[in-house]
Amino acid sequence: MSTGETLNFKPSSAVLLISCPDKLGIMAETFTFLARHNGNVLQADNFGDPDQNVFLMRVEWDLQRFDIDMRDFPAHFARLAERFQMQWRVALSSYRPRIAVLASRQDHCLADLLHRHQIGELACEVPLVVSNHPEAQRLAEFYGVEFHHVPMEKDRKAGAENTILDLMRAHNIDFIVLARFMQVLSNGFIQHYPNRIINIHHSFLPAFVGAKPYHRAFERGVKLVGATAHYVTEVLDEGPIIEQDTVRVSHRDTLDVLLQKGRDLEKVVLSRAVRWQVENRILLYGNKTTVFD
Amino acid sequence: MSTGETLNFKPSSAVLLISCPDKLGIMAETFTFLARHNGNVLQADNFGDPDQNVFLMRVEWDLQRFDIDMRDFPAHFARLAERFQMQWRVALSSYRPRIAVLASRQDHCLADLLHRHQIGELACEVPLVVSNHPEAQRLAEFYGVEFHHVPMEKDRKAGAENTILDLMRAHNIDFIVLARFMQVLSNGFIQHYPNRIINIHHSFLPAFVGAKPYHRAFERGVKLVGATAHYVTEVLDEGPIIEQDTVRVSHRDTLDVLLQKGRDLEKVVLSRAVRWQVENRILLYGNKTTVFD
Amino acid sequence: MSTGETLNFKPSSAVLLISCPDKLGIMAETFTFLARHNGNVLQADNFGDPDQNVFLMRVEWDLQRFDIDMRDFPAHFARLAERFQMQWRVALSSYRPRIAVLASRQDHCLADLLHRHQIGELACEVPLVVSNHPEAQRLAEFYGVEFHHVPMEKDRKAGAENTILDLMRAHNIDFIVLARFMQVLSNGFIQHYPNRIINIHHSFLPAFVGAKPYHRAFERGVKLVGATAHYVTEVLDEGPIIEQDTVRVSHRDTLDVLLQKGRDLEKVVLSRAVRWQVENRILLYGNKTTVFD
Amino acid sequence: MSTGETLNFKPSSAVLLISCPDKLGIMAETFTFLARHNGNVLQADNFGDPDQNVFLMRVEWDLQRFDIDMRDFPAHFARLAERFQMQWRVALSSYRPRIAVLASRQDHCLADLLHRHQIGELACEVPLVVSNHPEAQRLAEFYGVEFHHVPMEKDRKAGAENTILDLMRAHNIDFIVLARFMQVLSNGFIQHYPNRIINIHHSFLPAFVGAKPYHRAFERGVKLVGATAHYVTEVLDEGPIIEQDTVRVSHRDTLDVLLQKGRDLEKVVLSRAVRWQVENRILLYGNKTTVFD
Repeated sequence: MSTGETLNFKPSSAVLLISCPDKLGIMAETFTFLARHNGNVLQADNFGDPDQNVFLMRVEWDLQRFDIDMRDFPAHFARLAERFQMQWRVALSSYRPRIAVLASRQDHCLADLLHRHQIGELACEVPLVVSNHPEAQRLAEFYGVEFHHVPMEKDRKAGAENTILDLMRAHNIDFIVLARFMQVLSNGFIQHYPNRIINIHHSFLPAFVGAKPYHRAFERGVKLVGATAHYVTEVLDEGPIIEQDTVRVSHRDTLDVLLQKGRDLEKVVLSRAVRWQVENRILLYGNKTTVFD
Repeated sequence: MSTGETLNFKPSSAVLLISCPDKLGIMAETFTFLARHNGNVLQADNFGDPDQNVFLMRVEWDLQRFDIDMRDFPAHFARLAERFQMQWRVALSSYRPRIAVLASRQDHCLADLLHRHQIGELACEVPLVVSNHPEAQRLAEFYGVEFHHVPMEKDRKAGAENTILDLMRAHNIDFIVLARFMQVLSNGFIQHYPNRIINIHHSFLPAFVGAKPYHRAFERGVKLVGATAHYVTEVLDEGPIIEQDTVRVSHRDTLDVLLQKGRDLEKVVLSRAVRWQVENRILLYGNKTTVFD
Repeated sequence: MSTGETLNFKPSSAVLLISCPDKLGIMAETFTFLARHNGNVLQADNFGDPDQNVFLMRVEWDLQRFDIDMRDFPAHFARLAERFQMQWRVALSSYRPRIAVLASRQDHCLADLLHRHQIGELACEVPLVVSNHPEAQRLAEFYGVEFHHVPMEKDRKAGAENTILDLMRAHNIDFIVLARFMQVLSNGFIQHYPNRIINIHHSFLPAFVGAKPYHRAFERGVKLVGATAHYVTEVLDEGPIIEQDTVRVSHRDTLDVLLQKGRDLEKVVLSRAVRWQVENRILLYGNKTTVFD
Repeated sequence: MSTGETLNFKPSSAVLLISCPDKLGIMAETFTFLARHNGNVLQADNFGDPDQNVFLMRVEWDLQRFDIDMRDFPAHFARLAERFQMQWRVALSSYRPRIAVLASRQDHCLADLLHRHQIGELACEVPLVVSNHPEAQRLAEFYGVEFHHVPMEKDRKAGAENTILDLMRAHNIDFIVLARFMQVLSNGFIQHYPNRIINIHHSFLPAFVGAKPYHRAFERGVKLVGATAHYVTEVLDEGPIIEQDTVRVSHRDTLDVLLQKGRDLEKVVLSRAVRWQVENRILLYGNKTTVFD
């Protein structure tokens, strides 16, 4: 059976993510740098947007014979990075990012993520589940994850958010997944995790921004319902879209059936976004994402 | 090879479309009426919306041994229809509805519809193509359809619409298909064909209502683009949705590729809506459609 | 939140499933019978295959004012049923069918079904999980379901099957779901549950019948992988198909990714088939299914 | 409106396709070679299969400032190519490949391809249509394409194939599209265009290899039908798959409806394969394709 370690990453590899202005020689120099140090490339992907003069690249290479100690990588790579004005970061496949899941009463996305994690689909750690309802506790504990119940009462939201932030820090959380967390987070909170909070919105954005999208889709008489995974930014449901999908509905489908079909979408769409985040496959430019899958 | 006559209709059948308040006995009485007159049911479909207390039904039956002359059908059916306060109409498979296609410069939907009609996918007549650009003339004539070029200049729109209305009347048009007709029709025009004008909008409504939806989809960074066939009403892009579909796009897809993928969607979505209209499969309730396919 | 009771069934309704030769008056008589006894129809669906002269119908009606005690229904309906040579059965929405899940080491379908059941998507009881591996015990017990570990060793299969049959009988199981149960059941076993065993095959049947379909799909270089839910019959993977779906794969997808994408399909496809079975929406004719959803 | 020239290619670019054993430095050397000669990379894609030790790459670069005359490219690139044992070829965006379409009586794929070509979706020339039925002549001529009627009578197939081969040579055909050409070509014919004949098979291969796949799909009671574009090899329907797609069907769909839904699939699937071929996006390894789109 597959495990997260072997699913998409070689046992010992590194991923370099680059964003810079387009210029002659970026790839030549980068691949030459890697080859010179015996870094055999396992997967390379790139994208250039000529209108915005931006070049994005993801390179994954084998560390087995790479002759730079990865702790010294920044020092070795600095000159090249400066020359091309790169924004860059490097990630090791041996490091499993630490994610926290925020949930509310509906637990289908939470249950789905925890099971995927257990069977090795997600190469990350899930040390923490927080919910504003106590029901998810049993589920979190079944999967061996620490659970905290943090109520989000209207006039005590700021305090609740601080509690959650403290928990995040205490668990060294790398990014946050809102698994049908039905609360709007404050800008103050979001700024602590810029482009590191992934939300699942239960509609095909930009259709049905905001509350009760399935109800409004039902009212409008659409023939498909959708779900959208996106980064959370200060403007509600306007952050960069990571993944979307739709499913056919008919006039026969009651609102309950829409909700049920939607749940299937939400689980799949959110889990793809989380996996791509975990595997360092997402690069941002402007308000868009590039997914190198 | 299939022909429109045999595709979905028996050589000689009738379709009854009913809309009425839900009440005990509607189906019992209707099917008993048909059976008593030797009307063997070929297909029956129904839908009840308990919230709106509406009952909708489509029945298609064989006329071969049906003992009512269809010219007298209204007289025979009247008592039943009144009792249940039915809004109803009946259509004969022997009658091929007459549709007009309005097009602009982009002719992919027009070419698609004309070819489908030619190979027998659409059991209708297409006696008329109108465009505000002259380019479609060759295509229409290749398929043996009368073509009229009616420019839609900004300050002469009312006159142009009147010209089109005259053409519609002269050709006894039953309903109108806007095959990427890039003009907004006036309410005055629309009221002549209530729920008998089908438009293809090149987005997943209600996302990207209005102009240049692919451009805006591209800007927003969506991961799917869509197309929507709907009835034209007085509020732009707000009419009852007949059919929708989506297709996956990636960050690699330029605006040109979005347009091209969108064209494939538009052709398929519009042609489905037209076929359902031709085959009397669409019933309206509120601002929604019920498609009995 | 939705519960199984309200999802698709009215609190108190009955479903009648009919299969008979096509003949004038079946619907007239059936709906008249129901109306005469104050049975308000909630949903009715039918299908006739003229080539095979078969007529299939599913009617669901409200029992609230229905004036026949459902224990006496067969006696009341007998004359009508005989006249039209109907094969028929009736099911009450108040009865929740009892299903057993057979699983092996891979537990994604099992976990998915148990969670769906818990949140009310499936209007059935799940009193029993059996596996030839002990790992699923924790999961079954988390959801409050009795678990039995029955090893299926090569030379002791007959005994194992008898053990399972005894468990089925002891729990009054109505139908069996093979949730990635990687064992071939004997004809003797199958004959105890004719068309009452649902299997999920991890390919788009009839492509890749038999073992290791993902491996063979990977070898063949397909661009989509599929999953198929079907009834188990004596010929492996040849039973009537209930539901299928596919998902796109690319040359980049390793076998592990195919397996992972396939798991998502398997869960969704199997759960749809189980829900339709639970809600009495599936009718068989020949080796095909009619799904009245 | 988009034209083929601008759709996916810069006005003046070149595409290099490489297949070789995986080895350290391939990308470093190749990109360095291009950069040294002022070849700004527009798009680069690659794929390595570790099991088969094969590395595939597609690079497209801007010729505007590239300082090698493309007639001399082979001489300049030879040393690098030899060192890495590359199989390679280069294509200029200014060259529009010449394709011939072989059709039979059903002309939906032919009409679709010709219209796409006309509106600029396909950056190729279509100088020739051949059919074993005369009906397509009007269509070919409408789009300004030379047409030849070559009957394929059972005992005169060899002669007919020779006639077609002569036509191909006379028109300098680069590759052949079988647009529902219902004849099996001999191995002798195929060997003249190895991996340069694209066929559309009207099923989801490997399901329903051979004749009448929709009829067999209908008999089997599948819930989706599919279409597959593949290269023609000596074994019927066993060549490398380029593209596939499926569409949902229901028990209500007659065989005629399956055929009609299938036609929509065939058109889209075949046109994607042709576009990828035209744009030099397909690389073969073993019996599989890599599509760099």
